[in-house]
Amino acid sequence: MKNNLRRESTIGVVGLGLMGSGFVVSLLISGHRVKAVAPLAEDMETAPDRIRVQLGQCAESGLLSAPVDSYLLQLDISTDYRILSTCHMVMECVIEIAEIKRSVYEEIEAVVEPESIIASNTSAIPISDLQKYFIHPGRFLGIHVGEPSYLTRFMEIISGKQTNPDYAMQVYELAHHWGKEPTLLRKDIRGFITNRLMYAVYREGLELIEKKKATLEDVDKAFRYDAGSWMTLMGIFRRIDLLGIKDYAEIFRTVFPELSNNETLPALMKQMVEMHAKGTRNLKGLYHYTEEEAKNWDDAFTLFNKDIYELAALYPSGAENLIRKTSKTGAG
Amino acid sequence: MKNNLRRESTIGVVGLGLMGSGFVVSLLISGHRVKAVAPLAEDMETAPDRIRVQLGQCAESGLLSAPVDSYLLQLDISTDYRILSTCHMVMECVIEIAEIKRSVYEEIEAVVEPESIIASNTSAIPISDLQKYFIHPGRFLGIHVGEPSYLTRFMEIISGKQTNPDYAMQVYELAHHWGKEPTLLRKDIRGFITNRLMYAVYREGLELIEKKKATLEDVDKAFRYDAGSWMTLMGIFRRIDLLGIKDYAEIFRTVFPELSNNETLPALMKQMVEMHAKGTRNLKGLYHYTEEEAKNWDDAFTLFNKDIYELAALYPSGAENLIRKTSKTGAG
Repeated sequence: MKNNLRRESTIGVVGLGLMGSGFVVSLLISGHRVKAVAPLAEDMETAPDRIRVQLGQCAESGLLSAPVDSYLLQLDISTDYRILSTCHMVMECVIEIAEIKRSVYEEIEAVVEPESIIASNTSAIPISDLQKYFIHPGRFLGIHVGEPSYLTRFMEIISGKQTNPDYAMQVYELAHHWGKEPTLLRKDIRGFITNRLMYAVYREGLELIEKKKATLEDVDKAFRYDAGSWMTLMGIFRRIDLLGIKDYAEIFRTVFPELSNNETLPALMKQMVEMHAKGTRNLKGLYHYTEEEAKNWDDAFTLFNKDIYELAALYPSGAENLIRKTSKTGAG
Repeated sequence: MKNNLRRESTIGVVGLGLMGSGFVVSLLISGHRVKAVAPLAEDMETAPDRIRVQLGQCAESGLLSAPVDSYLLQLDISTDYRILSTCHMVMECVIEIAEIKRSVYEEIEAVVEPESIIASNTSAIPISDLQKYFIHPGRFLGIHVGEPSYLTRFMEIISGKQTNPDYAMQVYELAHHWGKEPTLLRKDIRGFITNRLMYAVYREGLELIEKKKATLEDVDKAFRYDAGSWMTLMGIFRRIDLLGIKDYAEIFRTVFPELSNNETLPALMKQMVEMHAKGTRNLKGLYHYTEEEAKNWDDAFTLFNKDIYELAALYPSGAENLIRKTSKTGAG
């Protein structure tokens, strides 16, 4: 096994929708040369502008050390897969349809070296299943990022059954250079870690709503102002250590038997799918939106992303230097 | 039914541990006159200093419009329940033992007017059960706050079976004046909303750890950098509207049947209880701590509380004026 993925490596991205473009930006600002393939003709037209706007957001957040244009000089976009031939790693970000991904992998494997790493951003299809499409399956793995990836630190690196662990470790190590806080999943668990945990919340929340014990608004308020007030600092298990283990154990004992074990799609979500609700995108969703409100939410999300990114950076994860890096109060 | 709970009302607090003291501070900075009863002699000694320190934290966070001492002038502390006689509302914050709470309620009911509201901060005992101890049960309700209550916006107001809804509504309305984002629960659900949702996460997280599919550290990292990056802005259901309903529905269908339905206390938590782990307090917990690390976490929590409180305040909940109140980027 060779590869030598490093800071100077050229990296490829296939698929230039919202997620693919974001990944391109995240690589550019980390100093990589990027080769991007647009399998859809429309992406050739929309992606360059989108990438420029996203780089502008990075500039506003103070993430750039040079002008936007100098990053764009490091990027080639093409519909021709052959531009990927020099890439040490290629990230696939196309639609979640296995057959389409399969044809993309064939195109990539035909042009890159056998030891180049190939990653997928899938969150719907098991990595081990996609791996079957490869001539050299050991080089294939999953990468799950927060959106937009240039402004979030979350990253899960998922090994499939045949993934060579050395390749996964190389991506894990390089991810720190991308400004990420990666986790390396050695088993290909369905739904990854973060999704499974959040789906457990959705299952319980939807049942509370169905049984009229709470409203959508109540649940969201509780999360914004309760869980939201500590989660970014410490996650959920550290919270137990800070608040008192005995109380949690006591309540787990009484509450676990009362939690939802529902295994089917809740009626509310069925109804949403049937009415073709797309949330803020078509003003039909769990909440009601005017056009202005939908735009306000999207804009607020962009701004909040930057704010919470900056706030999280003030609290390093190592306890030895945990105190806020620049403290207004002097308590640090 | 009368009561007329209002901004000028004198409010009582019984129990001056960490939570009780925090509630006193939250009332003082909202402009109330506060009568505090310390049923434990040790609280008479420790509470005044603690309250002064907490008011100092409020001053640092810019929450005070007058010097700390002027707030202290609005506070009386005593071991004598008779100081509560003029209170329109009394908040009970004593230990989670039903018999002790019962005797406290008898003392309170003996001195206040029949229409004075009495609230409990219990998170372990159903409000409807405690309500049975009252001569006038209609005036009794639950109040569940984030900690420390003077720096958090979260508040659940829980009605028991016999609670007069008008009283609950009076507290709900006044809570906005306390700077809270309250939710009013009309049913006395076990574990409240926020706890049930979080316990669903703990159940799933502990099972992933038990099955060696993830580590404690992975789960916490995923929460800090993924869920933590959006939760304070929008809660969990709004998130679905912003990201795409169809994908969520599809994944719910496949993942719900795979989620934990465990109804017993997980082995890891049993083990913690058996070794008398108290987390950062005795340096035994889910994580390992040196004394310095434990202190760092506690200090960081205090600082982070202020930071996230201020950040959340920049994003009002109404969509009509959602954009960040003071935007550095001008996008608002």
